[in-house]
Amino acid sequence: MRIRRRPAAPSLRLLPAALALVLGPAFAAPPAPLSMDTDQAFDSASVAPFAGAYPDVYARLEQRREQDLAHLQRWLRQPSVSAQNRGIGEMAELLRSDLQALGFRDTAVVPTAGHPGVYGYYDAGAEHTLIVYMMYDVQPVEPSGWKVDAFAGELVDEPGLGRVLMARGATNQKGPQRAFLNALDAIVRARGKPPLNLIVLAEGEEELGSPHYPQIVARYEQRLRRADGVFFPMSTQDRDGQASMFLGVKGILYMELEAKGNPVSGGPQRSEVHGSLAAKLDSPSWRLVQALATLTTPDGEIAVPGYRDAIRKPSAEEQRLFNGLVLGRKADEAKQLAAVGAARWKNGRRLRDAAAAEVFDTTLNIDGLVAGYTGEGVKTILPHRALAKVDSRLVPDQTPEQALALIRKHLDANGFNDIEVRRLSGYPPAQTSIEAPLSRAVLSVYRKYGQTPPVAPRIGGSAPYYVFTQTLGLPMLAGGLGHGAGAHAPNEYTVIDPAPGSKVAGLVETEKFYVDLLYAFAQALQQPQR
Amino acid sequence: MRIRRRPAAPSLRLLPAALALVLGPAFAAPPAPLSMDTDQAFDSASVAPFAGAYPDVYARLEQRREQDLAHLQRWLRQPSVSAQNRGIGEMAELLRSDLQALGFRDTAVVPTAGHPGVYGYYDAGAEHTLIVYMMYDVQPVEPSGWKVDAFAGELVDEPGLGRVLMARGATNQKGPQRAFLNALDAIVRARGKPPLNLIVLAEGEEELGSPHYPQIVARYEQRLRRADGVFFPMSTQDRDGQASMFLGVKGILYMELEAKGNPVSGGPQRSEVHGSLAAKLDSPSWRLVQALATLTTPDGEIAVPGYRDAIRKPSAEEQRLFNGLVLGRKADEAKQLAAVGAARWKNGRRLRDAAAAEVFDTTLNIDGLVAGYTGEGVKTILPHRALAKVDSRLVPDQTPEQALALIRKHLDANGFNDIEVRRLSGYPPAQTSIEAPLSRAVLSVYRKYGQTPPVAPRIGGSAPYYVFTQTLGLPMLAGGLGHGAGAHAPNEYTVIDPAPGSKVAGLVETEKFYVDLLYAFAQALQQPQR
Repeated sequence: MRIRRRPAAPSLRLLPAALALVLGPAFAAPPAPLSMDTDQAFDSASVAPFAGAYPDVYARLEQRREQDLAHLQRWLRQPSVSAQNRGIGEMAELLRSDLQALGFRDTAVVPTAGHPGVYGYYDAGAEHTLIVYMMYDVQPVEPSGWKVDAFAGELVDEPGLGRVLMARGATNQKGPQRAFLNALDAIVRARGKPPLNLIVLAEGEEELGSPHYPQIVARYEQRLRRADGVFFPMSTQDRDGQASMFLGVKGILYMELEAKGNPVSGGPQRSEVHGSLAAKLDSPSWRLVQALATLTTPDGEIAVPGYRDAIRKPSAEEQRLFNGLVLGRKADEAKQLAAVGAARWKNGRRLRDAAAAEVFDTTLNIDGLVAGYTGEGVKTILPHRALAKVDSRLVPDQTPEQALALIRKHLDANGFNDIEVRRLSGYPPAQTSIEAPLSRAVLSVYRKYGQTPPVAPRIGGSAPYYVFTQTLGLPMLAGGLGHGAGAHAPNEYTVIDPAPGSKVAGLVETEKFYVDLLYAFAQALQQPQR
Repeated sequence: MRIRRRPAAPSLRLLPAALALVLGPAFAAPPAPLSMDTDQAFDSASVAPFAGAYPDVYARLEQRREQDLAHLQRWLRQPSVSAQNRGIGEMAELLRSDLQALGFRDTAVVPTAGHPGVYGYYDAGAEHTLIVYMMYDVQPVEPSGWKVDAFAGELVDEPGLGRVLMARGATNQKGPQRAFLNALDAIVRARGKPPLNLIVLAEGEEELGSPHYPQIVARYEQRLRRADGVFFPMSTQDRDGQASMFLGVKGILYMELEAKGNPVSGGPQRSEVHGSLAAKLDSPSWRLVQALATLTTPDGEIAVPGYRDAIRKPSAEEQRLFNGLVLGRKADEAKQLAAVGAARWKNGRRLRDAAAAEVFDTTLNIDGLVAGYTGEGVKTILPHRALAKVDSRLVPDQTPEQALALIRKHLDANGFNDIEVRRLSGYPPAQTSIEAPLSRAVLSVYRKYGQTPPVAPRIGGSAPYYVFTQTLGLPMLAGGLGHGAGAHAPNEYTVIDPAPGSKVAGLVETEKFYVDLLYAFAQALQQPQR
C-alpha cells in the first residue's frame, strides 16, 4: 500500500525539557513510550477498489427490499434488554430460527451462566470460513425522551437524513446484523450458497460487558479455530457519509476501590455516624481520597510506578496508520473538541499528542465516586464507607492482571493496604493487521463504494475481541456502510432511505456491501499475503 | 464548686517526638492548641441540690396527667416535617394558639423567608425574663421501619423501658417542649403566674439548619436582649437514667467543593463523556480528588496551614469541666467505641485525647462524595463534574468566614483555583459559663432529682445558639429529665411511664423538673454571682 510522508512539523516532544516547563501545561509532553520514529503515513486511497460485481444478487436485494426491511422491523419489535432480562429468551430463539430458515445447517441456543448465546453453522462446502460475531441484546430504553415507541420499529422522516428506522437496537446492532443476513439471503437465492462457510456466534450480553462470551467461544473452540477471520457487521458512516475503519480495541481493567471502617485504620464499621464524630474517629472517605490521590499527579497524569512499562512501542504499521489518521483530522480540531464539550486536550497537549494517547496510551479514569450524603443541602455525617469506580484502558502488551498488581503494590507501598481493590471486569486489548486478508478485503470494498476511510490502528474504546484475536488467533474486523446514531440514547435510528444528495448508504446499498465483502474475503484468502 | 484532682497519668503528649514516631499512629499526639495546664476536675456532686418544693403545683401535674399526656399526643398527631413542608402552617398555628390558651399575652406566627416562627410573651409582671427556645418541626418519617403510624401518637409498651409515646417528634422535640408547657400550665393553675416572664421563640426549620431563625430573633431583638437567659427543654437522661449537661456547641462551616470541566483546567463541560476519552481529556474527578487530598494528611489530619491558629487555649473553667468529664468516662471506653462502631479512636489516640478533640478541636469532615456512575457493576464514563460535601466544626475563636478563607487560600496556593468552594451554611460556636445563674439553676435542679450530671464545656455537635450567646449576649442552656431516642430514625419515642426500677423520669417527674427550674432560675437571679 502506498505510504505518504506527513508534512514535517516541529514536534514539541523534541523541545528541551526546560522550554517545555516555560511553555507550561499548555503543551504537556506525552508519556515516554509514545515516541515514534517514522513520518510515513498510510493512505487508504492507495488501495485498489474491489473489482467484483454480483448484479444477480443485487437484483434480488432490490426486489426484496420491502421483505428485507420487514425483517429488520421484526427484530426491532422484539425487545431484548439484557440489563433488564427483557425478551432475551425470545430474541435468542428468533435469531436461531432465522438462521435455520436461511439455511444454516446446525443451529443452537447456547446456555451460559448468564443470557444464552446463539450458534449457527452454514456449510457452503467452501474451503474457507468466516465467523460472524453478533450481539442480540440492546440497551435499556432509558433515558426517556423517545419520539416513538422504542420497540414499535417505526419508520420516521428525519430532515437532512431521510427515512429512518427509529427503535432501540436500530443501529446497535440489530439493524446492521439483519442487513448482513439479508445479504446472505440474496446470495443464497441467486447463487445457491455463499462463497464461504459461515459461523454465526452471537451473545445476549454485549451491553453487560460480554461476561459469558468466552463460555460460548469455548464450546465451539475447535471449529472456530479453523475459521479464517471474524466479522462484526457495523454501520460506520457518519452523518456526512464518511466511513471509517479501526483494526484494534483497547483492553480494560475495571475496579472498585473501597475504603471501609476497619480495625486497623479505624473509622465507623457498622454505619455512618454523626459528622461531629470526625473529631475523634477516622474517616474512610479521607482514606479513599488520599489513596486515590497517590495514583495520579495533581494534574491527573498516572503516577503508579511502572504502569507504562509493559506498553510496547508503536509498531511501524501502527505508526503509519496513526500518521495517516492524524493527517485527516487536523482540519477540524475545534469541531472535535466541541463534540466532547471540552476547551482543550488533556493538560493542554496538541491534537497530535492527544490523538496518540487515545490510540497508544493507557488511562486511569474515575468513572464514579460515592460516599455518604449526596443530595441537596446540608446533612452532616461521617460515612463508614467510600467507593471509587476506576477503569484503566489497556494497550499492548498490558494485561489486566499486571495493571491490577501494580496498583495494589503502589497502594500498599504508600500505606493504603486498608483500601480494598475489587476487579469487576478485565480483558486484554485486541489487534488485527492492516495486511490481513480480512482487512484488505474490507478496505477494498469500502474503496469500491467510493470511500477512503481513515484507518485507526486502535480505537480508545474497549471490547473483548481478544477472544477472537488472542484465544482463537484470528483477524477480527467490524465494518460496513450505513449510518445510525443514538446507540445508548433516545431516538436511536438507522437510515433506510437517505435524503436526496446524501452520501449515506441506504439499506440496500448497505446490504450490497456485505455481499461484496463475502466475495472479497473469499478472493483475498486465495491471494498470497503481501 | 468543688474541684477534684484527676489521677496523675503519664501523658503521651509529653513524650519526645522521636518516641511518638516509634510508637507510630497507635498513639498519635493531639494537635498543638489542645495542651492543658491544670489537673483540677469539676464535680457536679459538689453542687447543692435545689431546695425549693412546690407541692401544690406538683399536685396539679398528678391530677392532670391524662390531659397533659393528651396535649403531647395532640402535638405529635400534627405532622410538621420541615424538609417536606408538611403540616408546617398548621403546627405553627397550633403552637401559637396553645400559648394563647396558656395565658401568653402577645402571640404571633412570625413570617420569615422560610417556614414561619412562633412568638409568645407571658407577662408575669416579674423582674426577670426567661426565653424558651422551641422548634416545632420534625424530621421526615423516613427511613421506614416504624412499628406504628409515625403521626398516630400511640402509646407502646417497650420491654425494659415502660410505656412510651412512639411518634415522630416524641423526643425531638415536641415531647419535652409540651411537657415544659404542661409545667407552666400547672404553675398558672396553682399560683396564678410563673415566677418569671417568659418569651417563647420557636422556629419551624431546626431540622433544616435554622436558616431563618436569625430573622425571627431580629424581629424581637430589643425585647429579647432584656431577658436573662435562654432555655431549651430537652430530655437528657440515657436509658439507664443518667442525665447530662453541656454548656456549649461547636459552630460549623458546611461547604460544597466542586470540580467541573472548564476552559482553564479542561475536561468535558457539557455532560459526561465516554470513559475511553480519559486518554485525551482532563478529568474533573481527579482534580477534585487531588484538591481534597491537599486538605489533609494521608491519615486524615487537617493539613490546611493556619487552620488551628484562631483556636484559643481551653480556659481554666473548660479544662476543669473537661477533666471532670473524662474521669467519668474512663471506665467504659470499649462501650463508647462500640456505640459508634469503631475499633479505635482517630489515628489511635487515647480516650482522653480523643475526648479532648471532640470538645476543643476543629474538624474537617467529608459528609459526601459524588461523581459519575455510582450504581452496581461496570459503566465507563468520564464525569464532567465531581462534588464533595465537607463540613468543619468550629471552636472558639474560629469563624466560618476565616475557616473558609483559609481553605480557599490553600487550594489556590496549590493551584486548585478551578475548584469551586460554595458555603452552604456557617455559624460560629456558642458558649455559656458554668458560673452563669442559669447553669447553676439547672444543675441544682438536676441535683435535687438525684442526678450528678457530667458537664461538658462543649459538645462535638453544632447548633446556631450563637444567636443567643453572641447576638443577644445571653446564657443559653438545654436540659431536662426524661429519656427518649430515635430522633432521626424509625420508632422515635419518649418514656411516659418508666418500667419498675427504672431511673428514668416519667412524664410527670419531667414536668416537675421544669416547674423547679423556673423557680430555681428566678432564685439564682436574685443571688450574686460567685
